[in-house]
Amino acid sequence: MAHILITSGPTRQYLDPVRYLSNASSGKMGASLAQAALDLGHDVTIVSGPVAIKYPDAATVVDVISTQEMLDAAGKAFPKCDGVIAAAAPCDFKPKDIAEQKIKKSSQTLELQFVPTVDILAELGSSKRTNQWSVGFALETEDGPARALKKLVKKNCDLIVLNGPTAIDSSENQIDIIAPAGEVALSVAGRKETVAKEILGVIQARLISKNR
Amino acid sequence: MAHILITSGPTRQYLDPVRYLSNASSGKMGASLAQAALDLGHDVTIVSGPVAIKYPDAATVVDVISTQEMLDAAGKAFPKCDGVIAAAAPCDFKPKDIAEQKIKKSSQTLELQFVPTVDILAELGSSKRTNQWSVGFALETEDGPARALKKLVKKNCDLIVLNGPTAIDSSENQIDIIAPAGEVALSVAGRKETVAKEILGVIQARLISKNR
Repeated sequence: MAHILITSGPTRQYLDPVRYLSNASSGKMGASLAQAALDLGHDVTIVSGPVAIKYPDAATVVDVISTQEMLDAAGKAFPKCDGVIAAAAPCDFKPKDIAEQKIKKSSQTLELQFVPTVDILAELGSSKRTNQWSVGFALETEDGPARALKKLVKKNCDLIVLNGPTAIDSSENQIDIIAPAGEVALSVAGRKETVAKEILGVIQARLISKNR
Repeated sequence: MAHILITSGPTRQYLDPVRYLSNASSGKMGASLAQAALDLGHDVTIVSGPVAIKYPDAATVVDVISTQEMLDAAGKAFPKCDGVIAAAAPCDFKPKDIAEQKIKKSSQTLELQFVPTVDILAELGSSKRTNQWSVGFALETEDGPARALKKLVKKNCDLIVLNGPTAIDSSENQIDIIAPAGEVALSVAGRKETVAKEILGVIQARLISKNR
């Protein structure tokens, strides 16, 4: 039995007390992965951004808002875990400055500067102990396999799951799992519950059983 | 019996196929206003941005994403209605350009330009027939009463409900209803269901009964 950390859902980066940058990630893939991991007898800790979905009761859930909060919570949980599946879609940009008061609407063009947020998967990847593993998700709209492989290397992942923007807030998904040598370890499409089971099967065979 | 249009929830303005600007409006105030209006025997049409909340079954619900879509749907419904309660929190800025592909993360500062969206309440307010009425919501973080009154005048509202950012995604609210002469027609705090009933009471007395 392994203890698996799953990051899930979107994060939010506020511009002012009201407005934020986010994405439509529903947490559905994270919830399906959690259930699939629990079904295999593993312990699951989920660090999740704001979602409406209900996670499995048997999982421990830590709620966060921003990308930095997600890293803080995941960084705290990871040392006690055997591996992480980073299924979240954290904002990778944040406003350079956060306005203290609501930005007033005007007829003028508003120019805002955004800076990169911390990279959760890269941080966790660089902190891995021997036998700890990390699986990332890459959401690409073009040039998917090459970009996913580049992310795998850069973020020190053991596997990376490539999917597209149609995965967001959908009950279905179509994914390829890319392994470090660049080969496709799994290519599957269907309901997220089914896809999650297949992904866990690959993680079990390649990462968990290997470390027994 | 009146036919009341209610706008509810947030809108989203996409920057690219994945990322959007939005706010945490839950649709709870709109749902409570809808229930209070139905309880008084009125017909209700709700135009709502993306929310997780369930609206009353007896209401007609039109789902939209962006501020322009909300205006289009509300503008189509409004001629058949006696009045509108604009409880939505539509994005009032949108990216000047929408990237066709997901904007790549880089270490660089990203500079984005935002332009004002169309003003739904002002558009509906300027299209009112005799006897049609409009009630707006103003969410202010500073200088509330003065800004709310200014909005009332500018957007040709009959009443405006002033609340603060703590109202967002909360089960409670604290509001003042400001009337055109600047007087406070109602000041109430409590659960949104209770606040909604009180607001409908003022609308009933000042706007609906008057037009009988």
